[in-house]
Amino acid sequence: MMKPNTNYQKIPANYLFSTINQKVEQYKTQHPNSDLISLGIGDVTQPIVPAVIDALHKAVDEQASSETFQGYGPEGGYDFLRQSVAQHDFQDRGLAIDASEIFISDGAKSDIANLQELFEVNNKIAIGDPVYPVYIDSNALAGRLGDWNDQIGQWSDLTYLSSNEANQFIPKLPKQAVDVIYLCYPNNPTGMTLSKTELQTWVDYALENNSLILFDAAYEAYIQEANIPHSIYECEGATKCAIEVRSFSKKAGFTGLRLGYTVVPQDLTFQGQYLNKLWARRQTTKFNGAPYIIQRAGWACYQEPGNTQINEHIAYYTENARIIRAGLEEVGATVYGGINAPYIWLKVPNNLTSWEFFDTLLEATQVVGTPGSGFGPSGEGYFRLTAFNSRERTIQAVERIQAFFTQA
Amino acid sequence: MMKPNTNYQKIPANYLFSTINQKVEQYKTQHPNSDLISLGIGDVTQPIVPAVIDALHKAVDEQASSETFQGYGPEGGYDFLRQSVAQHDFQDRGLAIDASEIFISDGAKSDIANLQELFEVNNKIAIGDPVYPVYIDSNALAGRLGDWNDQIGQWSDLTYLSSNEANQFIPKLPKQAVDVIYLCYPNNPTGMTLSKTELQTWVDYALENNSLILFDAAYEAYIQEANIPHSIYECEGATKCAIEVRSFSKKAGFTGLRLGYTVVPQDLTFQGQYLNKLWARRQTTKFNGAPYIIQRAGWACYQEPGNTQINEHIAYYTENARIIRAGLEEVGATVYGGINAPYIWLKVPNNLTSWEFFDTLLEATQVVGTPGSGFGPSGEGYFRLTAFNSRERTIQAVERIQAFFTQA
Repeated sequence: MMKPNTNYQKIPANYLFSTINQKVEQYKTQHPNSDLISLGIGDVTQPIVPAVIDALHKAVDEQASSETFQGYGPEGGYDFLRQSVAQHDFQDRGLAIDASEIFISDGAKSDIANLQELFEVNNKIAIGDPVYPVYIDSNALAGRLGDWNDQIGQWSDLTYLSSNEANQFIPKLPKQAVDVIYLCYPNNPTGMTLSKTELQTWVDYALENNSLILFDAAYEAYIQEANIPHSIYECEGATKCAIEVRSFSKKAGFTGLRLGYTVVPQDLTFQGQYLNKLWARRQTTKFNGAPYIIQRAGWACYQEPGNTQINEHIAYYTENARIIRAGLEEVGATVYGGINAPYIWLKVPNNLTSWEFFDTLLEATQVVGTPGSGFGPSGEGYFRLTAFNSRERTIQAVERIQAFFTQA
Repeated sequence: MMKPNTNYQKIPANYLFSTINQKVEQYKTQHPNSDLISLGIGDVTQPIVPAVIDALHKAVDEQASSETFQGYGPEGGYDFLRQSVAQHDFQDRGLAIDASEIFISDGAKSDIANLQELFEVNNKIAIGDPVYPVYIDSNALAGRLGDWNDQIGQWSDLTYLSSNEANQFIPKLPKQAVDVIYLCYPNNPTGMTLSKTELQTWVDYALENNSLILFDAAYEAYIQEANIPHSIYECEGATKCAIEVRSFSKKAGFTGLRLGYTVVPQDLTFQGQYLNKLWARRQTTKFNGAPYIIQRAGWACYQEPGNTQINEHIAYYTENARIIRAGLEEVGATVYGGINAPYIWLKVPNNLTSWEFFDTLLEATQVVGTPGSGFGPSGEGYFRLTAFNSRERTIQAVERIQAFFTQA
């Protein structure tokens, strides 16, 4: 008799975004003429830039002719893209990362979810909190997190690295040794960052404890301030303890094109096993590469005029983030993030819960955001706003929230 | 201390295609003016058909404008494609498969490799032999197959369903009950098929034993004969025991575009768990959908003139297969497959091993094929030729092999 994976039954159904959708639909039914603005979703709204569109058309035409047709490609990505990534994202910044350490994929989500396959089940996991749910869910499905406690909303065998106002959003090192640490900076959902010195503390901890850090740098392109590391490999010794994951989704609007990459340094060994070889084996066995035309689109992001064009997009969203942050501060709200990231993390006023604030704000302003508690226990009492809407709608949303705060 | 997944160390390095490449490169160095023809690789050579190219260009243009830009899509695929698949591949053939049972992905390889995540580690697995290596490797990496015995080239806890001349390439039902059965028809590498009655035997076995069948129908489009099932759901009761995987790679030349799908019927339950819900959970947690533009390309395969154009490609490769098969039979070789599949399975003459024949054929004819032993123990003594080269080169290769057989 086939026995299904019982870990699937342990996972609490995460209804965050479907609950939001239901509430929004219900509100629309009750108020058919309302003009809702969403600062909730993490998806981009600006179209793909012209240089990338040109690269896509060109690559499509290559698929139309026998002479230039591309069939199965290398599972880890075409050399033209691996080389561009290694050079522009690392070597040009003084980091000795080689093309053989870059694995191109169909997106950061897949990589982040699949990387745990390289660890035995009995590794102790620590994950930043609040957090992108994939880190936790992928480990829970593999049976690595023990049991879910619905009362406290936590897994029994997971170390939560809490980030909140009390610790200035700098999580403390775990008291008990952990084997694998998931960190995301600039952070989703808080929009906060670690300085290079703060990140070095984590690298030092990992080196000392023979731990592995999975560093999610999906929002790296949004870093504005000088002292913030763009890559964990800026920290000394990080190639011996860290894997880094990057995405083209928020950097170049590739949420619908699907492209990302993972850096697995050749130096990275645990118990005599080279993780670069293990990941290569995983990817060649279970994945067949990102589409050629999508890889050509990624390549165009590193050339001119593509690079300039995507930087204009990032500047556009960054200005949206500044407008939200400044607008909220102007009316006395407590806000975090929004400087080196497209996310603003609002402290919910009047001791409301995240969900109570969601309902109140929707009712009063018709602005939709995301309740912080949906991202984990340390998110309770916070609210995420995103900078991905258009300028016009972002300004309208801020004006409404300002009026709400002023009247409240 | 991080403990790597020890199952990676158990897996024998599969050097099949790299060994072939090395031998070919060595031959070229020694014979710089030789004119090699490959009937070895399983990749297509014909470019993408015009209607699909048009659909790709149109979808790329949609990504260039705010009004039509597509960001994150549904993880299981866009409705336009799920509906087209359900209708054309199933409902039009009288099979009651609904769009909610279709999960679009980046290819059959990923799906075939990932589906085992839905089973507990202690399920007993049976796999056709010879076989596409991904079925075995993905289960071995999950620790489900026991230990590798290098002397006999087999896993200790895997049931090999042998297909060979002795059983007319119809594997026998397992003597001891198994929980999950991987079947691939039309078969890679043998090119052989099961009749509907023969496949029904497996469905009946699965229903009786509460087993799950994973049915790989990647080569369905090549079926020419009337009595061969295009889908396992043509068999009675199959929606209660079978998952089916399909690919656009060989049907429409999408090896470089990456698109496939998996059918998980709503009826499919084991120990009270609905596999459709489990797979939906797996895909939403770990995958972010195939690219919008690639899904539009897939959709164009079901419309006119796309459908007619891809059928012309299939007819082209099918004629190549016929030429290879007829040409080899003409000189007295024993051949299988090549009628309902793009693969010809040649019985190696003179009791040579598969590798000895590879070397002999390369030396004598400069034609490259794939040693059958690379696909598993039952492949020893066979040799795979593929129909994916151009007509001209296929004919040249056959003439050379004919001369070799005539002289030998």
